[in-house]
Amino acid sequence: MVSKEKSSGEPVAAAFLKPERGHPVTLREVAEAAGVSTATVSLVVNNKKDARISVQTRKRVRDAIKDLGYRPNAMAKTLVSGSSRFIGLVADAIATTPFAGQIIHGAQDEAWRHGYALLIANTEGNGDLEKDAISMMLEYKVRGILYSTWFHRPTEIPESLREADFVLVNCFSTEPGTRAVVPDEAQGGRSATEILLRHGHRRIAFINATIPAPAKDGRLEGYKEALEAAGIPLDPELVMEAYPDQEGGYEATPELLKRDVTAVYCYNDRMAMGLYDGLRDHGLSIPDDMAVVGFDNQEVIAAHLRPPLSTVSLPHYELGAAGVRMLLGLEEAPSNTAVKINCPTVERTSVRVQAPA
Amino acid sequence: MVSKEKSSGEPVAAAFLKPERGHPVTLREVAEAAGVSTATVSLVVNNKKDARISVQTRKRVRDAIKDLGYRPNAMAKTLVSGSSRFIGLVADAIATTPFAGQIIHGAQDEAWRHGYALLIANTEGNGDLEKDAISMMLEYKVRGILYSTWFHRPTEIPESLREADFVLVNCFSTEPGTRAVVPDEAQGGRSATEILLRHGHRRIAFINATIPAPAKDGRLEGYKEALEAAGIPLDPELVMEAYPDQEGGYEATPELLKRDVTAVYCYNDRMAMGLYDGLRDHGLSIPDDMAVVGFDNQEVIAAHLRPPLSTVSLPHYELGAAGVRMLLGLEEAPSNTAVKINCPTVERTSVRVQAPA
Repeated sequence: MVSKEKSSGEPVAAAFLKPERGHPVTLREVAEAAGVSTATVSLVVNNKKDARISVQTRKRVRDAIKDLGYRPNAMAKTLVSGSSRFIGLVADAIATTPFAGQIIHGAQDEAWRHGYALLIANTEGNGDLEKDAISMMLEYKVRGILYSTWFHRPTEIPESLREADFVLVNCFSTEPGTRAVVPDEAQGGRSATEILLRHGHRRIAFINATIPAPAKDGRLEGYKEALEAAGIPLDPELVMEAYPDQEGGYEATPELLKRDVTAVYCYNDRMAMGLYDGLRDHGLSIPDDMAVVGFDNQEVIAAHLRPPLSTVSLPHYELGAAGVRMLLGLEEAPSNTAVKINCPTVERTSVRVQAPA
Repeated sequence: MVSKEKSSGEPVAAAFLKPERGHPVTLREVAEAAGVSTATVSLVVNNKKDARISVQTRKRVRDAIKDLGYRPNAMAKTLVSGSSRFIGLVADAIATTPFAGQIIHGAQDEAWRHGYALLIANTEGNGDLEKDAISMMLEYKVRGILYSTWFHRPTEIPESLREADFVLVNCFSTEPGTRAVVPDEAQGGRSATEILLRHGHRRIAFINATIPAPAKDGRLEGYKEALEAAGIPLDPELVMEAYPDQEGGYEATPELLKRDVTAVYCYNDRMAMGLYDGLRDHGLSIPDDMAVVGFDNQEVIAAHLRPPLSTVSLPHYELGAAGVRMLLGLEEAPSNTAVKINCPTVERTSVRVQAPA
């Protein structure tokens, strides 16, 4: 197959041969530069070990590829191999919350580790967009799809999703056999309450959300478990409810102050941010007059309140990474329940040791 | 080519024929169901108008495709057509800022409108990841690449990016001929200052960032332009600097209070959030004792401060959308400068009318 000689590898020649932008190097150009057939280049590119090509010829082809800056067509490769190296990720709120970004980050790192690229679609909760996104992914023959939601919730499984291998991320289905990965809300609620218990607090209020959600149930369950483990009887008066944002936290302040507590655990950081303002308006300081713990470790807020807020972190990065591992069969997925991921504690300075009464 | 008859289109048959998950319908199955050759199915799928196929046969193939739920292989189609329907988007901070999500949202909406899917890579500023991401996109033969940064800044052009058709989004290069789209910082600064002027304020401080950036220069320029247009001489004493986060805004408060101003425009919303706390600690209320305007319209913060913050919005959605239009040649891209996108005003209640002194 060797028909002509060509020197290669000199930097000057390489620079001279580099393609102009917008004119990708073709297989044919590589073949001409290496003095071989396009079939030979193809065999070298696809790493067919059993093809009878001499070491010298392989080297000449590889040098030509390097000099010319040839990039094999990944889509042609996946057609040959019969499956693509894409994993699809459907997200419902990339643009409106900071949480989806962490799921993407974790999923991408894990996907790349195993040689897959992420094909991401942002639906902003629009059903038609979602349908189009899943169709597109199926047409690109993705290895599978991660279907994710920005807040932890039960979900219907879209019909078209069933055509793919899929894992639910930050959401779950009651259908048996559905793989899903979600945050461990109860453990998170327990950890949040334990921060306060560890600092000597005994009368601890919990301001839960008004909106039904797995987080509402789980975070309350964790609060109860932590109190019970510490031998403190549950006082139902200390469990309050508010809308889970800054305004809700602010407006809950007067009710909270009637409860005679030294500490409060808020359903989320946004609520804690509003409560900070409410307590200040009542002339109270954190942590001296009231210890405050949040939930979410929300970017932009938690670390920058005055004082910085102790909280537990939602494990979005880990949810994305675990979703990819489950999809690729690298991590076991129980068939009857969602896998729960730990919510780690992040301690700052909104809690201090409480002197015994 | 017609060899056998087959009824199709009845819902019952369609349901019966729907594929099990994990077993995608093949071209051959469509051909068998329609009683035609695979070549005929392929011609119909690829919409070859000039192929001599009867209307009845076309209909039969289309019905079989619908009944079986066949999805053509998009990658095979792009190989045939010679270019892919992907646009790459490289983002440096999907996980750590809420801004990248808006760029993605705008780019995706615009890409889909023109029949392209987005291939997104999150690099979190890691050079090796960025190189890998661009290589991957080139191997998938993307139509072009949007190279985006989470804050507006000058950028080097990565070598591998030059192999693609590309547009810089939220960043720019001094190299002539580089297409780029960025926010109009000067207009944004002018708009922020004009909110205060329109409410009767005359002594307006500007707390700029300590960190050099196009935003720092542009937002100051806008402040100066607005004052000049209003016939107010610039008092250099009223231009201060602080670190652009909550802590910076808080710590700037005592200096601000020495300036005898009725209003302040902050470099960003995070700084304004810290200033809110600082003013409160001095017993001052917003907007009665001090009018405050921010910049960024930062999700989670701006609308939820007490009082809600008047600000100008960074046009991330529009940056992403305009980037796609420029890449596809649908919007003119001047060769000697970046296209500037308007930063819209968002008025809330942190400013009120100032009685004349």
